[in-house]
Amino acid sequence: MKTVKVGIAGAAGYTGCELIRLLAMHPHAEISWLMTGKTNEGRRLHEVFPHLRGVPDRVFQALEPASAQGVDLVFLATPHGVAVSIVPEFLEAGCRVIDVSADYRLKDPKLYEEWYEKKHTAPELLKEAVYGLTELHRSALPGARIVANPGCYPTASQLGFLPLVENGLIDTDHLVADCKSGVSGAGRGANVDFLFSEVADSMKAYGVAGHRHLPEISQGLALAAGKPVGLTFVPHLTPMIRGIHATLYGKLIKDADLQLLYESRYQAEPFVDVMPAGSHPETRSVRSTNTCRIAVHRPQDGDTVVILSVIDNLVKGAAGQAVQNMNIMFGLDETAGIGRPGLLP
Amino acid sequence: MKTVKVGIAGAAGYTGCELIRLLAMHPHAEISWLMTGKTNEGRRLHEVFPHLRGVPDRVFQALEPASAQGVDLVFLATPHGVAVSIVPEFLEAGCRVIDVSADYRLKDPKLYEEWYEKKHTAPELLKEAVYGLTELHRSALPGARIVANPGCYPTASQLGFLPLVENGLIDTDHLVADCKSGVSGAGRGANVDFLFSEVADSMKAYGVAGHRHLPEISQGLALAAGKPVGLTFVPHLTPMIRGIHATLYGKLIKDADLQLLYESRYQAEPFVDVMPAGSHPETRSVRSTNTCRIAVHRPQDGDTVVILSVIDNLVKGAAGQAVQNMNIMFGLDETAGIGRPGLLP
Amino acid sequence: MKTVKVGIAGAAGYTGCELIRLLAMHPHAEISWLMTGKTNEGRRLHEVFPHLRGVPDRVFQALEPASAQGVDLVFLATPHGVAVSIVPEFLEAGCRVIDVSADYRLKDPKLYEEWYEKKHTAPELLKEAVYGLTELHRSALPGARIVANPGCYPTASQLGFLPLVENGLIDTDHLVADCKSGVSGAGRGANVDFLFSEVADSMKAYGVAGHRHLPEISQGLALAAGKPVGLTFVPHLTPMIRGIHATLYGKLIKDADLQLLYESRYQAEPFVDVMPAGSHPETRSVRSTNTCRIAVHRPQDGDTVVILSVIDNLVKGAAGQAVQNMNIMFGLDETAGIGRPGLLP
Amino acid sequence: MKTVKVGIAGAAGYTGCELIRLLAMHPHAEISWLMTGKTNEGRRLHEVFPHLRGVPDRVFQALEPASAQGVDLVFLATPHGVAVSIVPEFLEAGCRVIDVSADYRLKDPKLYEEWYEKKHTAPELLKEAVYGLTELHRSALPGARIVANPGCYPTASQLGFLPLVENGLIDTDHLVADCKSGVSGAGRGANVDFLFSEVADSMKAYGVAGHRHLPEISQGLALAAGKPVGLTFVPHLTPMIRGIHATLYGKLIKDADLQLLYESRYQAEPFVDVMPAGSHPETRSVRSTNTCRIAVHRPQDGDTVVILSVIDNLVKGAAGQAVQNMNIMFGLDETAGIGRPGLLP
Repeated sequence: MKTVKVGIAGAAGYTGCELIRLLAMHPHAEISWLMTGKTNEGRRLHEVFPHLRGVPDRVFQALEPASAQGVDLVFLATPHGVAVSIVPEFLEAGCRVIDVSADYRLKDPKLYEEWYEKKHTAPELLKEAVYGLTELHRSALPGARIVANPGCYPTASQLGFLPLVENGLIDTDHLVADCKSGVSGAGRGANVDFLFSEVADSMKAYGVAGHRHLPEISQGLALAAGKPVGLTFVPHLTPMIRGIHATLYGKLIKDADLQLLYESRYQAEPFVDVMPAGSHPETRSVRSTNTCRIAVHRPQDGDTVVILSVIDNLVKGAAGQAVQNMNIMFGLDETAGIGRPGLLP
Repeated sequence: MKTVKVGIAGAAGYTGCELIRLLAMHPHAEISWLMTGKTNEGRRLHEVFPHLRGVPDRVFQALEPASAQGVDLVFLATPHGVAVSIVPEFLEAGCRVIDVSADYRLKDPKLYEEWYEKKHTAPELLKEAVYGLTELHRSALPGARIVANPGCYPTASQLGFLPLVENGLIDTDHLVADCKSGVSGAGRGANVDFLFSEVADSMKAYGVAGHRHLPEISQGLALAAGKPVGLTFVPHLTPMIRGIHATLYGKLIKDADLQLLYESRYQAEPFVDVMPAGSHPETRSVRSTNTCRIAVHRPQDGDTVVILSVIDNLVKGAAGQAVQNMNIMFGLDETAGIGRPGLLP
Repeated sequence: MKTVKVGIAGAAGYTGCELIRLLAMHPHAEISWLMTGKTNEGRRLHEVFPHLRGVPDRVFQALEPASAQGVDLVFLATPHGVAVSIVPEFLEAGCRVIDVSADYRLKDPKLYEEWYEKKHTAPELLKEAVYGLTELHRSALPGARIVANPGCYPTASQLGFLPLVENGLIDTDHLVADCKSGVSGAGRGANVDFLFSEVADSMKAYGVAGHRHLPEISQGLALAAGKPVGLTFVPHLTPMIRGIHATLYGKLIKDADLQLLYESRYQAEPFVDVMPAGSHPETRSVRSTNTCRIAVHRPQDGDTVVILSVIDNLVKGAAGQAVQNMNIMFGLDETAGIGRPGLLP
Repeated sequence: MKTVKVGIAGAAGYTGCELIRLLAMHPHAEISWLMTGKTNEGRRLHEVFPHLRGVPDRVFQALEPASAQGVDLVFLATPHGVAVSIVPEFLEAGCRVIDVSADYRLKDPKLYEEWYEKKHTAPELLKEAVYGLTELHRSALPGARIVANPGCYPTASQLGFLPLVENGLIDTDHLVADCKSGVSGAGRGANVDFLFSEVADSMKAYGVAGHRHLPEISQGLALAAGKPVGLTFVPHLTPMIRGIHATLYGKLIKDADLQLLYESRYQAEPFVDVMPAGSHPETRSVRSTNTCRIAVHRPQDGDTVVILSVIDNLVKGAAGQAVQNMNIMFGLDETAGIGRPGLLP
């Protein structure tokens, strides 16, 4: 079986080290180089991430697409705004690209500019990029040169809402996604707001006025609905390291056997687990795995449906889904390297 | 100034020890006795709660209303189902009662039976009991013999929804309360589900099919609305010790200056703090305090209003509001003993 | 390559579910049955541990050695005191046994009786049992019928002290092991002391007067020293799920290049990682792995040596070391199934 | 009763906000101004610390001793190195000073230079400064112009060791202080090392080669012993917000009734609580309080004594002890404003 040679740019953050961990265990992938920003340039992998002693040591190189030659695939886990300009260079160097940052997710360059406060300089690539929510765009992945890997909130929220929206069962003008995220979603930058002493033993909402994942979720749901949707998205910061818990609310406009609907929709999906009726998935049940666990509720048999959808933000919400997409892009078994049971407790 | 003599029944749980802490600092209260169940009967306060060394030591007595004579007020922090039968005995002994358990909250004995799976044996006292959400029933407190202290979720949720519901601004058929609670809300009983290794670093919803606080919140909002309401209530267990974060969603049916509305409604309230527009209150900002902090949002100026309401579940959600009610019942300054700033970090 | 058929008794606790996780990923092991105590008897694996959905479902059987036939190896993860009597039955049924509980660790039955308050009814098997600290007794494992898998504190402490003690470098009359453990070490029983609200955001020592792991550590170090040792062992409960951090103190009586000593002693060991001089291993760096990370310090070049030794209590401190021992017992690659990098953050 | 007018310099960190909290509840203190560094200059107190809404709002001023006039006392909670130069200016402005930073703790300016890598420019004030471990230097406080408030580790460690050292009961050449601290001890600066995702669910030692609190503890114990001492000090970072747990080891060289010794030594101390024999104090038992709880152990009646000493690092380890010292300096009741029971759970 062939081996995919990969490079990771932006390898010193949480998504970066998760990619290294997953790819180190992958039977058909080989990491050729690690690139990073100024802070960690020149440092050794084992120094920055002692937990990876055992994995072959490497030196973090400067972020230079020119030195990317010789790999089949580049994972970009760079801060938002970096990929816009370097993706074209990597493509030119003959690499395929999975961008785990947000730069190629929004199809409309105006939306990108509005939410990321930066002009998108490669609008034609925006069109070309395949949005890598695997369960929605699997068929487009084998031929893709560039995959825009979904955000963590968008993955949990879209997988949760899709069966309802695709089947026109709920009022898409008044969707509510109340989402809770572990702190690793905020990244590994020096920031007072995410100090242990600031976020432990506490909880808060943030970005209620507008969070960058709002247009991304709306774009995906609109595609599924065939029309624009109205979504209220409220993210919350929760004192846990990993995990996203999306609690999704919709008003039913048609009747259906919801449990059956979800089970059918995701029957063939290796990484979506529809739980038995009445379940309450815990985020820890997917810790370290690429699985999205979903439970379907209709309290008091009323007209409000409540979907509970949990993922590990660094795996199915980032590095794991990226590897899942890589597997499909390169004709490998979709579960290769990412099919292990989760870590609990 | 007079001193209120109090007894605490059910004093060995979290609400019990919080009552002891608050009353020990109260300038006009004196604890006469502590009663408890079998597990801790005969043990000393300092043995069960070493953090209270410094507060006068006492022995936990058996739970016997007959020995209650001589106190002005009894706080009941017993497990649900106990107060039903012992409240009448305490009243007979000449004490007034604040029941921090759920037994006297639901006005309709059938509802109580449905949700607590036990017949209510004192329906006439249900009628008499004043529901102690101070900000809603303050005027009835001075003359009350029995006060039913609200639950933690109901306190945060009702205070958050009240201004909208009282003014007919939202569609009361489709209210959503997505609530997150710290683990102390589950009490101090031996239960695998609340072990550190089960709930740390994880999050989950629970009771989506129906939680006992649902009819309590609905009852309060219906009273404010003047008609029945439709509420979807989803509680979540969060890895923090104290704190409730209620994220409340409603569909606006009339326009109004919501920020102004909330500020006016709660202007005179010593324990409700409406934050500046655009705020995101953290649960830790009310840790150890009796304050409810509220922020009002209307994302993208759409027709969905989002209210963020946080309390400390053991203070404003239990022991603190009980002391607030005591203060009013006995003609003391409403803030006596509970007006200190919160503990952070 | 052959497949080892295994059974797990005591499979519904933390060590049990960790064994299931590790064995499910093992290329040469197959789980034949799961046995457990009354609480979970008859329940399905997926119901008790939803995170293991994906692993083949099974029903927890009653704990009956008679039904053990047909497996090569039984892992016992039962509460202390159970293995004493059922190990002989499993042996009789023709199975080899790895006892992860404490019942076969202390060679002297009087010591067992003193510390576990129960007479040991199989003293001849105590003699036969191989103490499964792999790095110390590897050569005895291939022929062993019964392996007494070490405790978590003893694993971290002995691996940390061994090179010093084996070489007579420190005063063995005054050893100090100050150890910190995550809460999962206390097991999955219903116990108020280990509720989230009791142990989160706090730390305490326990068992200072005498903890059951004290004679176990002493026994191992005495064997290495060739004479009795004097050990002060103070365990601490730490608000983390997994992990043991042993901080070990000894007074040097001979000079030596300590860093070199440790590197040489563990050079060939796949699961002991001596870190570069000056390091401070974090418990999270070994989370989910079978590795023990050790750092050697001699502050201010004085005569006190400080060894830092970290493990994951459920892996190298329990289930992982058990699988490592199984690998050796059955002639498999020692790292089979347990060689993956750790989960961080 | 008089009111002490105070100013707080370095008011936007954790010690700063704890000083504000404690002084806001103090019956005889009044905060005149708050000074801070560039980051928060010009911001309002309520904006930086929303939990202090309710306390009078103020604007953080620039750090300029010239504007200090009119206050009786200045608390300095500035980063180490700042107080060296501004203390003289505050003294000149006629204020007394309590320096909660480390700048005036080490009596020997060479030691300061060695450990803080900065020349001490006010060596004569070093001599004058009273080391504010209240229980050791109470009598010198009333007349002090400048008090050097002890560090958190030094407070817990010295209070734990003092009775043994003062009475020559242990070998002072081989003291061991194994200390565990909550993360707030690291302050409120932007630093990757203290992000939630870096320190939660993990533990590590740090600074084993030499930590700045080592010479401070040694200085205090040497004073008590009347001769130099040999101390091995190993601090650990623990995933909790507040709290220090010092586990202290010494080799007994004389016999004594240790429990009685400790009870006698601290009998009259309002903020040192010697627990009953056999106790294991939890850090949470002193959360938010100025109390140091101590337990005395002599495992297996051997010659090693183990002292457990816990404090809240931000209260007795910083702001609370500073207020205690203020009370004595100004002739107030020593417990004024800091005598409340702790917050638990």
